[in-house]
Amino acid sequence: MVSEKMKPFMANNSAIRAMFEEGNRMAEQYGRENVYDFSLGNPNVPVPQVNDAILELVKTEDFNTLHGYMSNAGYPDVRQTIADSLNLRFGCHFSAGNLIMTVGAASGLNVILKSILNPGDEVIVFAPYFVEYDGYVRNYDGKVVVISPDTETFMPKLSEFEEKITPSTKAVIINNPNNPTGVVYSEEIIRSLAAILERKEKEFGISIVLISDEPYRELAYGGVQVPFITNYYHNSVVVYSYSKSLSVPGERIGYLVIPDELEDSKELIQVATIANRVLGCVNAPSLMQKVIQYCIEHDVTVDLETYERNRDLIYSALTEYGFTCAKPDGAFYLFVKSPVEDEKEFCETAKKHHVLFVPGSSFACPGYVRIAYCVSYDQIKRSLPAFKEIAKEYGLTQ
Amino acid sequence: MVSEKMKPFMANNSAIRAMFEEGNRMAEQYGRENVYDFSLGNPNVPVPQVNDAILELVKTEDFNTLHGYMSNAGYPDVRQTIADSLNLRFGCHFSAGNLIMTVGAASGLNVILKSILNPGDEVIVFAPYFVEYDGYVRNYDGKVVVISPDTETFMPKLSEFEEKITPSTKAVIINNPNNPTGVVYSEEIIRSLAAILERKEKEFGISIVLISDEPYRELAYGGVQVPFITNYYHNSVVVYSYSKSLSVPGERIGYLVIPDELEDSKELIQVATIANRVLGCVNAPSLMQKVIQYCIEHDVTVDLETYERNRDLIYSALTEYGFTCAKPDGAFYLFVKSPVEDEKEFCETAKKHHVLFVPGSSFACPGYVRIAYCVSYDQIKRSLPAFKEIAKEYGLTQ
Repeated sequence: MVSEKMKPFMANNSAIRAMFEEGNRMAEQYGRENVYDFSLGNPNVPVPQVNDAILELVKTEDFNTLHGYMSNAGYPDVRQTIADSLNLRFGCHFSAGNLIMTVGAASGLNVILKSILNPGDEVIVFAPYFVEYDGYVRNYDGKVVVISPDTETFMPKLSEFEEKITPSTKAVIINNPNNPTGVVYSEEIIRSLAAILERKEKEFGISIVLISDEPYRELAYGGVQVPFITNYYHNSVVVYSYSKSLSVPGERIGYLVIPDELEDSKELIQVATIANRVLGCVNAPSLMQKVIQYCIEHDVTVDLETYERNRDLIYSALTEYGFTCAKPDGAFYLFVKSPVEDEKEFCETAKKHHVLFVPGSSFACPGYVRIAYCVSYDQIKRSLPAFKEIAKEYGLTQ
Repeated sequence: MVSEKMKPFMANNSAIRAMFEEGNRMAEQYGRENVYDFSLGNPNVPVPQVNDAILELVKTEDFNTLHGYMSNAGYPDVRQTIADSLNLRFGCHFSAGNLIMTVGAASGLNVILKSILNPGDEVIVFAPYFVEYDGYVRNYDGKVVVISPDTETFMPKLSEFEEKITPSTKAVIINNPNNPTGVVYSEEIIRSLAAILERKEKEFGISIVLISDEPYRELAYGGVQVPFITNYYHNSVVVYSYSKSLSVPGERIGYLVIPDELEDSKELIQVATIANRVLGCVNAPSLMQKVIQYCIEHDVTVDLETYERNRDLIYSALTEYGFTCAKPDGAFYLFVKSPVEDEKEFCETAKKHHVLFVPGSSFACPGYVRIAYCVSYDQIKRSLPAFKEIAKEYGLTQ
């Protein structure tokens, strides 16, 4: 009954999602307060202004406009508000027509990949990376090409990148700030990436789309800047989601930016709008589009300090206990070196202490684990004795 | 830059959507009140209890639960509420596990087709039908097989159907009540369909999934019953959307039912849940899932009388002016015979009178047009002189 193409997913379903379901089961068994679930990037910081926006919109807007169909690309006024905001913040010159509202970033990635990929086209990603990308690329019969991780800095290995670009390369996906490492690619790195791409486009006479997946754009700490890629490379597409910056991952709201500088941009915008419809989304959820507009107009984002405080607590505790980990500048993840080679064993050991996190093999980077610290400060504090016990078991601490 | 597979869409984009955009342009030029737009199935009847639900949920539910991730199939309690309601109404025995919440019916169709189709598999549809199905089937390299329309009754031509089933047939899509004709397939028709499918499954030793796309289930007039297909055929999948029954098409909320009786149902439910994620939806919008639960618990549906009143007004006026049309029992469409062979010419003529509707060729049934009467009673009333003028131009009336 099941399609051949879907069968591999059954054997190898998302370990992150499996861990999330496991966490829910354990919470039922042991009580939510006795399970330290760091598996999913499910934000825990409320953004009350989102609810303010909903209340105001429901009370003031016409029912059938608020909940009805609009253009498949989204409400023109919402797209214009986002364009204006990006122009102001990053010195761009987008109009509403450069934006397509999407059902989150996952759907935005599907829309752009469906719009550009032919069977066999190669899409380059940098390990560690969110392996859901594999599924998105396979949806359109593309082929994922993985650049091996630089486990010193977790920055892209540029020389390997340049070597692996071929005449079949159609796209490159970066994720900045990065899930699962929390590192932020600097302006210098983006410039180097862009220079390589331009060189290779010329060498092979091809077009390569640099897709920047940016759900964590607003989550950068200590004044670290996240470069806006359309300012650095002509064939750039930005994929954004409000899941993390407004703590609404369940609501599925984000957008695509396809700038005028991109080759055949008019055609591509038209095709991506159709892809949004034909993939079955039709349009991004309507009320949430208007909520986004309200939040931009009222300058709302999640309280960053909460996550920064979480980071500081868990990072200093874990390194004190002897764990090894690069200090992240953004997102809400720690990417910790496993004290044993098989990090899945490490995950199992932690689970015995009711601590849940995700193996690095789920990010094409075995030997590491991802700890999502978008949980309450209190959960982190209460989990520390368990982490200390685990460290002891591995002889990292006394 | 554009994928080969997407190129045909550019030449042949949705005529319905093009008409909708044209309607918006004309409304700007002539004033909304002077354009009689019957192009899109965009409900105009508010369901204020939807807003009540939103207000209550926002005030009482935990922020991160209401707007956060849940299982990819949707909140278990929401799915259980829907299952209970279906069991009560249709004598089924579904549990939460048989349901997957989806981003509307369009996404539900994509999810089930992605889950079952292999390249070259045939999917049978009955003209006239919603031609977006073509795109959905093509997404997974399936092949649409069209059964020609019975323009007398607009019921499925069962003998042609039986002939066109081959060993490559994987699915059949029906749409009941029907868009664009408004007819409702009776229990007798569904029984005959099921009998043919069972016979052919045995003859060819294959499994054929009967997919019933039911966004108009709640919109049946005069006590007409819409049979619930899982009661008639084992390999049935129901695709539902609240777009029409709660007037929220922009919000993208619906569900799939995969019953236990379906072959390999456990596997298929798992795969469809993964498909929901991997296609990029991840999950159906979270707040709206809870709104659905509230509306079921409070027995909320759209006020049917409004649409019935609309139907009676436009049907009697148009037939009085000499137009030919089957009286619809459900949905909110009239499928009217074009007074000239080329119905696109008829659409153009109507447009000169500021009346917009959609050519039947958009439903694989040229020679007819679809008039969506999910507009205000007042709009219908004000449009009647224009319809009368059009009828005069074609010599249908004095």
